[in-house]
Amino acid sequence: MQLLKDRILKDGRVLEGNILKVDNFLNHQIDVQLFNEMGKELKKRYEGTEITKILTVEVSGIAIAAIVAQHFNVPVVFAKKYAGRNMDADSFETDVYSYTKDATYKVRVSKKYINENDSVLLIDDFLANGNALLGLVDIASQAGAKIAGAGIAIEKAFQKGRKLVEEKGVRVESLAIIEKMEDRQITFK
Amino acid sequence: MQLLKDRILKDGRVLEGNILKVDNFLNHQIDVQLFNEMGKELKKRYEGTEITKILTVEVSGIAIAAIVAQHFNVPVVFAKKYAGRNMDADSFETDVYSYTKDATYKVRVSKKYINENDSVLLIDDFLANGNALLGLVDIASQAGAKIAGAGIAIEKAFQKGRKLVEEKGVRVESLAIIEKMEDRQITFK
Repeated sequence: MQLLKDRILKDGRVLEGNILKVDNFLNHQIDVQLFNEMGKELKKRYEGTEITKILTVEVSGIAIAAIVAQHFNVPVVFAKKYAGRNMDADSFETDVYSYTKDATYKVRVSKKYINENDSVLLIDDFLANGNALLGLVDIASQAGAKIAGAGIAIEKAFQKGRKLVEEKGVRVESLAIIEKMEDRQITFK
Repeated sequence: MQLLKDRILKDGRVLEGNILKVDNFLNHQIDVQLFNEMGKELKKRYEGTEITKILTVEVSGIAIAAIVAQHFNVPVVFAKKYAGRNMDADSFETDVYSYTKDATYKVRVSKKYINENDSVLLIDDFLANGNALLGLVDIASQAGAKIAGAGIAIEKAFQKGRKLVEEKGVRVESLAIIEKMEDRQITFK
């Protein structure tokens, strides 16, 4: 998706450790018009595919999922990382390793909000090593839900995430695929 | 806002400790169409008020803010609770106490994304004791930004939040105001 690629080149910054900083439009400050275009594009790519629900994970996936969901006209469910007092005890649970935080945490979805009648679209901001997305795949599988596919804003194709997710039989659609980041230069696929 | 009140009566549950559980449409599963109507209503209430940015806080404010922002056509900035590796060191910071998690945590906004030229609308899902909203007021004040007001989905009028926020000179617009929750019965103002 050219609009997103252009924006990454304009505003993204490559930090040490292959971290791409896009916090001025994607995950701290949010450009809702850009997200709206991302929603249109994902709707086009998944045209004809049954989708009953959008599943994402705290935190950075939520805003994208909310705006994308308007184009599919389905509810969003977000997996919770830090379960508060009012979280259902009866939930699907999985472990996710976060590279940017160097920590493993549990994510949970109440059993009330995903079940075997659902066909879910998984949404996240990044696909790199695939940890968050594999967590969502695991939760959807525990629920017996069909996985319609994944919709990702930015994929780092030089990491193993896509391979691992596709091995689970899940279709992956990424809106900007980065082939390499070298010497702070971003090259798209 | 009648649509939201009806939904709270239909799907909300009152738990011990005056906790209102609305996780099937507001903060775990999200009804994006309802959020869209909430955005329209807030746009109407703030008609004629200059708003350059929407400011919210992780986690439950994000989805509402993202959809509301489409009606104001401005970016969203969300204060981050758990700063990862790629958070700007140069940020405004404040402490927020969470009642549902019984913990105090820091929230931060990069200085790049809010400044004295902004007129911000503060968005959150709940207003009860006002801790999260006062945190956002503090951050906006540190930045020298104007505060256009606050837009809240559900206010618990029997707690002190509105009073504390209004004492800071901030206009508060809540879409559903709960006067009391007794014997698991919800009464709106």
